[in-house]
Amino acid sequence: MFKFAIAKKDRDSCARLGRLETAHGGVDTPVFMAVGTQGTVKGVTPQQIRDCGVGMVLGNTYHLMLRPGSERIAKLGGLHRFMAWDGPILTDSGGFQVFSLADLTKRDDRGVTFRSHIDGNLIRLDPERSMKVQRDLGSDVVMAFDDCTPYPADRAATRASMALTHRWADHSLNHFQGGHQSLFGIVQGGMYPDLRAESARELCAKPFAGFAVGGLSVGEPKDLMYPILRHTAPLLPEEKPRYLMGVGTPADLVNAVSAGIDMFDCVMPTRNARNGSAFTSLGKVAIKQAAHKDSDLPLDPACACYTCTHFTRAYLNHIYRAGEILASVLMTIHNLSYYQTLMAGIRQAIAADRFPAFKAHILQTYAARDIFDYPMPDTQTGEVPARNVEDHPTCG
Amino acid sequence: MFKFAIAKKDRDSCARLGRLETAHGGVDTPVFMAVGTQGTVKGVTPQQIRDCGVGMVLGNTYHLMLRPGSERIAKLGGLHRFMAWDGPILTDSGGFQVFSLADLTKRDDRGVTFRSHIDGNLIRLDPERSMKVQRDLGSDVVMAFDDCTPYPADRAATRASMALTHRWADHSLNHFQGGHQSLFGIVQGGMYPDLRAESARELCAKPFAGFAVGGLSVGEPKDLMYPILRHTAPLLPEEKPRYLMGVGTPADLVNAVSAGIDMFDCVMPTRNARNGSAFTSLGKVAIKQAAHKDSDLPLDPACACYTCTHFTRAYLNHIYRAGEILASVLMTIHNLSYYQTLMAGIRQAIAADRFPAFKAHILQTYAARDIFDYPMPDTQTGEVPARNVEDHPTCG
Repeated sequence: MFKFAIAKKDRDSCARLGRLETAHGGVDTPVFMAVGTQGTVKGVTPQQIRDCGVGMVLGNTYHLMLRPGSERIAKLGGLHRFMAWDGPILTDSGGFQVFSLADLTKRDDRGVTFRSHIDGNLIRLDPERSMKVQRDLGSDVVMAFDDCTPYPADRAATRASMALTHRWADHSLNHFQGGHQSLFGIVQGGMYPDLRAESARELCAKPFAGFAVGGLSVGEPKDLMYPILRHTAPLLPEEKPRYLMGVGTPADLVNAVSAGIDMFDCVMPTRNARNGSAFTSLGKVAIKQAAHKDSDLPLDPACACYTCTHFTRAYLNHIYRAGEILASVLMTIHNLSYYQTLMAGIRQAIAADRFPAFKAHILQTYAARDIFDYPMPDTQTGEVPARNVEDHPTCG
Repeated sequence: MFKFAIAKKDRDSCARLGRLETAHGGVDTPVFMAVGTQGTVKGVTPQQIRDCGVGMVLGNTYHLMLRPGSERIAKLGGLHRFMAWDGPILTDSGGFQVFSLADLTKRDDRGVTFRSHIDGNLIRLDPERSMKVQRDLGSDVVMAFDDCTPYPADRAATRASMALTHRWADHSLNHFQGGHQSLFGIVQGGMYPDLRAESARELCAKPFAGFAVGGLSVGEPKDLMYPILRHTAPLLPEEKPRYLMGVGTPADLVNAVSAGIDMFDCVMPTRNARNGSAFTSLGKVAIKQAAHKDSDLPLDPACACYTCTHFTRAYLNHIYRAGEILASVLMTIHNLSYYQTLMAGIRQAIAADRFPAFKAHILQTYAARDIFDYPMPDTQTGEVPARNVEDHPTCG
């Protein structure tokens, strides 16, 4: 079922244009997946998700195993049917949320034990259980159960965490049963370029269908995230999809694409929408600002989404201030549409050999710097040097 | 612009089948208007409102004059454009909300002074201002500014309140400018049949385009509401639309239609939806109940709405318990669809001379009694006698 093919490599960067096929249909890459944490992309119906141009959705193993329970979803026909989304779904392994949301009680060599943030029940999660839960959910892309190295972490702790990830990668492969599902491995190594290289070497020797760069966007500055990302991405097999987990801003997306990333997910468009913050062709717009109270303009004059073609900023300002559900809905529709339009723009730019100009335009819109302008951190300390700017991308 | 025509009178009751035309299109009557309090039908987009079969929306003068302000809405092109609803809109006069939501500071012969529930500002509302605000909003149907008699109220207080309503009806007519708008009068008289008759006689002599029965569904028992309604409705001019404000349950709707009412509005379908309560062909369903956790059934097996054709009760139970916005959205879509399907069923039943059977079926579904089985309250005291059941409707 699972196929990944690169249609074109950008001549000016490491960007790739491709196509990912699953049992539930395909998406063009680079692709941004909408986050559907608890079995819903917050605030919007599957019909609206489609109308926003979203082709692929992410589900959270941690949330769904706690409530309503993966066996219940399996009995009801799997996550696709449960949430009425018939397109491709990727599920994460649950590990990241255990660390960020649960009351972690114990991590050992074989897995983690934690207390549910919902009812306080003691729960065990390990590679075998993560594969079982994701099998219950029936997602198209399954993520290996990994140990997400926190930031900051010293070299010894990062190495130990990485070793655990590698062992759990084998356990995940052992318990993964295939069928219509595909399994992705996750590269760790923290902020140490040589550990990233070691992790990529170890993991890429294993029979995963794709690879994620994990352990980024966990609190580290862009000064570390960007050089580590552009160092790691080219170390992943060229013929398999590369997925940057939990990233990011529009500037992050064009930067990561230029470093060779094919897949993304992030709560930012949906969460920011509910907080009244829009991504637009003019940069960020905070809809609650009094300046919008009388504005007859759409949220984004360049946008063709339902929100921008039907409502003024004045209206959105009003319903946001009034605490209306529709404010979350309409802002989410716009932000999801913006992200999908951005990804379509990226793909068209690569196809037309004008990706550098497109990237520069987005970076300028959000006053962000190019990923290739960031110096590499020190191999031993993980610290960023003052100089050592690389001028040209290395695509491996 | 405004036209109302009765296409058929039911042979078995006082029910009427009709058509209401406005500058923003028409609706078949009996019609149920979705409530769009603050310029949004809570939880759903105008597109979803249409998909639910809603043809006409109600806006609240009180809420919109406080925030975002009616002059702002006027500058932005009126309420239709502001909320992106191009169908007919009726606005209430603001009076009812002043009593139920605001900190009322003074009522005098010419209007009311109150403190905004939003910012505590002192605000004046009277017939002139209500007409001005509703003109700013640009609604198709404008309601006269009335004094909604509270429940309970003794005969003297009810008479005094009614007299104020009659005076304000004249003031409203004096300040109403017409254009594409039409003005409805509101009959009061509390729970006293003879005062209701007096109010109907007084008001119906004035040049209103339609008439509302006000002061019902204000806390009184059905033992009072039903007989007062079936007594009052036939006293209104047959050729003009009759509107029962703020009512009600599905049983209320079939009962009121059988008493001769053409128009309704109520927050019940939308508010109950957000509280997890659905109206269905099987009666009420509380979606949070554990019994639905594993249910593969739709919310209502007889319903063709987006919610019922795409999601199981198990899914709705899950997202409701998880506190997801989508629970409010999907439940609202169903309840609005149910109400519209109910109204379409009423209209079809009248057209096919089978309204009594349809009404009986709805009353049975909700274990409710027929409006004509309720004895009339005492003319002088407003109290309900133990007997005196009328067997046959009087349609005036």
